[in-house]
Amino acid sequence: MRHIFHSTTSGSYAVVKKILAFFLIIALNGPLFSQNEDAFFLRDIYDTALTEGECYEWLRHLCQDIGPRLAGSPGAEAAVFSMQRLMDTLGFDTVYLQPCMAPRWDRGAPASGRIVNNEFLGTQPLNVIALGNTVGTGPDGITAPLVEVKSLEEVEILGEAGVAGKIVFFNRPMDPRLLNTFAAYGGAVDQRALGLVVAARYGARAVLVRSMTNKLDDVPHTGSVAVVDTVPKIPALSVSTNDAEQLSRLLGRGEVKVHLQSNGQLLPPVKTYNVIGEIRGTTHPEEIILVGGHLDSWDVGEGAHDDGTGIAHSLQVYPLLKKLGYRPQRTFRCVLFMNEENGLAGGRAYWAASNERNEFHLAAIESDRGGFTPRGFSAQGREDVFTDYYAKISTWLPLLEPYGLTFTTGGSGADISGLKSQGGLLMGFVPDAQRYFDFHHTPADVFEAVNKRELELGAASITAMVYLIDKYGLR
Amino acid sequence: MRHIFHSTTSGSYAVVKKILAFFLIIALNGPLFSQNEDAFFLRDIYDTALTEGECYEWLRHLCQDIGPRLAGSPGAEAAVFSMQRLMDTLGFDTVYLQPCMAPRWDRGAPASGRIVNNEFLGTQPLNVIALGNTVGTGPDGITAPLVEVKSLEEVEILGEAGVAGKIVFFNRPMDPRLLNTFAAYGGAVDQRALGLVVAARYGARAVLVRSMTNKLDDVPHTGSVAVVDTVPKIPALSVSTNDAEQLSRLLGRGEVKVHLQSNGQLLPPVKTYNVIGEIRGTTHPEEIILVGGHLDSWDVGEGAHDDGTGIAHSLQVYPLLKKLGYRPQRTFRCVLFMNEENGLAGGRAYWAASNERNEFHLAAIESDRGGFTPRGFSAQGREDVFTDYYAKISTWLPLLEPYGLTFTTGGSGADISGLKSQGGLLMGFVPDAQRYFDFHHTPADVFEAVNKRELELGAASITAMVYLIDKYGLR
Repeated sequence: MRHIFHSTTSGSYAVVKKILAFFLIIALNGPLFSQNEDAFFLRDIYDTALTEGECYEWLRHLCQDIGPRLAGSPGAEAAVFSMQRLMDTLGFDTVYLQPCMAPRWDRGAPASGRIVNNEFLGTQPLNVIALGNTVGTGPDGITAPLVEVKSLEEVEILGEAGVAGKIVFFNRPMDPRLLNTFAAYGGAVDQRALGLVVAARYGARAVLVRSMTNKLDDVPHTGSVAVVDTVPKIPALSVSTNDAEQLSRLLGRGEVKVHLQSNGQLLPPVKTYNVIGEIRGTTHPEEIILVGGHLDSWDVGEGAHDDGTGIAHSLQVYPLLKKLGYRPQRTFRCVLFMNEENGLAGGRAYWAASNERNEFHLAAIESDRGGFTPRGFSAQGREDVFTDYYAKISTWLPLLEPYGLTFTTGGSGADISGLKSQGGLLMGFVPDAQRYFDFHHTPADVFEAVNKRELELGAASITAMVYLIDKYGLR
Repeated sequence: MRHIFHSTTSGSYAVVKKILAFFLIIALNGPLFSQNEDAFFLRDIYDTALTEGECYEWLRHLCQDIGPRLAGSPGAEAAVFSMQRLMDTLGFDTVYLQPCMAPRWDRGAPASGRIVNNEFLGTQPLNVIALGNTVGTGPDGITAPLVEVKSLEEVEILGEAGVAGKIVFFNRPMDPRLLNTFAAYGGAVDQRALGLVVAARYGARAVLVRSMTNKLDDVPHTGSVAVVDTVPKIPALSVSTNDAEQLSRLLGRGEVKVHLQSNGQLLPPVKTYNVIGEIRGTTHPEEIILVGGHLDSWDVGEGAHDDGTGIAHSLQVYPLLKKLGYRPQRTFRCVLFMNEENGLAGGRAYWAASNERNEFHLAAIESDRGGFTPRGFSAQGREDVFTDYYAKISTWLPLLEPYGLTFTTGGSGADISGLKSQGGLLMGFVPDAQRYFDFHHTPADVFEAVNKRELELGAASITAMVYLIDKYGLR
């Protein structure tokens, strides 16, 4: 690109001006006056986010002053109280902590791994990381032959004869053909979440899982493993994709024996908190619009895209509306959930309390897919109401498309999933997904991986959605 | 994000399968059979790019084995011959070099700058870089007071009385509100391209320009300055945005004197080349479809996003079609242009030769906006034909939207702009634009800034476009 004056107008002022002019002309005839007003208001939201947004500095604080925030850790506690203090300055009616009891997992010293008996390579180190909620190997580690599988079903087929005494190596890659990398993740993560459970039943000594990423590199990705009390507790580790490829190549030539050492332990649950800010609605206070993300993160990296950006987005919504003089008609609630990563204790506590009080969440929006350029929202809801809601929000597409936003049906977010029974609309903020799994659950998920403009555009997009739902409802 | 199985379907297999199923049903009734076929073929293009794409390794070679490639430099020459050798392996009918005479600019030793007399700070270093095509200050540098302006017009108003003997400091930022950062660039870059010309007329000693980026950081951005023989040659440098902000603050308190030293020189033009590969069309060889990018880059960084990714995209198109057994009906030409950055000699030579031979480019697509996630294409053309072309390509949107692609009207690319008079369709590949100017024309524009999947998706998107134009024409 050189100094040509580019006139491409995708998402640009020129397009927006054309749209504004269009609405202005229509408005003279009356019926669409409010859409005209809305087009201008959305433009104001984006302008304000891009020129006066504070979310990038809040994210910096969360990532760099506080750092990793696994539930129950000192970092998580610091984040709770620091975010409460920050929320106190944002103009909410009420800011409060909602207690919950979260599982506490401690990684201990970093895990290590190596190939020990390969005839071609001798001893070779492996890039491994202990998976969340798992037990350690003990100080001496485990040495055992590797058996490679591509699915849980393959373990069932191999049975005790094929698995007992071995380390089960789950090596089905995420499908690179899926443009939606979250769908690719969803198609592979059963190996990490449930591989241990299946392998332990047949007497495996440990589990080694290919990292959940499309990228071929040397960085192992952590993440949680389902805790099932009825199966033996065995260690589970993740291995980098490059090493997974290498192990698979070597297994093609003969037996591969691996040594793994890890030090995780589950400690007694600890009391921790969701952080909640609320502004009571002026005319429909009984209808709640929730925006949230999760405050906890894994214990490696800084939890920037997972889910510092969701926290920064959520915190920015009400200040943007306030700056623009908009007072919500419905009750707006900003919820920073605790323990999404390894237990969902915060989400569960929130649903329980909400259902007990017979609350109605008209809409809940979670941001938990990173802070990249906005592409839209996924939406889901109870069968009896969802079609009407989806039709209603679709009428807003002409207002949202200039900002690159569209709607899809599908999952919303783990922390809000339990609100579905209330009969409101559940949405997930959907940013560009190509880079997310380069960082997810790794030491690379740091503040510098987030782009300021992309983050601000996300906050503006969620605010636009909240504004439209608040102003028009969903019926 | 945890181990929930995400069912969001944006751009996912699920959506694509639904579309394929839809077309399959329709196809049973006959009329849309070819759209069904096309939906499958596009899916094949993307699958192949994402699983067997070679463009990322080609980009690595260009960035890391060759490096910076300013026209006439040893790097540019190496790139020409290396790309010719690579093209020879890609199955083209013909691969050839097209000579052109390009201006040759040499930066010399890195520039330096400092504030010399500020009463608050004393001497303070500035992050500066010499702008392309400019002369140096001489070894002793230039020390002069700074006069800050926000536009070329302000210089005209200040006139000789306000400007003579001073360093004119152009400090109008790119507009952060523009979602299309290229539009923001277009709205600010007159200061870099033409500031020298205006300031030199009124006797300025040098020009210092705020770097063309939305990011506040310490990295100065280079770029080209218009060469106008009728004005005195004075040095022009760019300063980082953080330093520009600082200079502006200090100027608010009183006079600021700056010392600048730079070493650029224009050398005699040198012979260099476009690299061209061609496959002759089977049934309409007289209609050319061109895909191109520019092979030269600035002399800092590795020219990864500008425009190594455009080269990688362009090279990938024909191999993808070939792997899928598709033989173009029209003549396909892959053109790697030389000297886009500081002269456009390659583009001019190409147009001249093409017009002389009375060629007709039915379509020309340039990729010169980076290698980020595809968003679509901008399109332009001669007034008498453009509306029909745009209507035609818009009928393909249902095939392209599953991949996140849309069309906008607007500029295409500098290297192909001179083909407009032939009456074909000119298109620019449009990827996500939020991060481009974080890297543009800086040492940060390196291979690692490019994401493999994003690059492959770009190559697939351009290939899909070429396939549709080749198969259906534009009338």
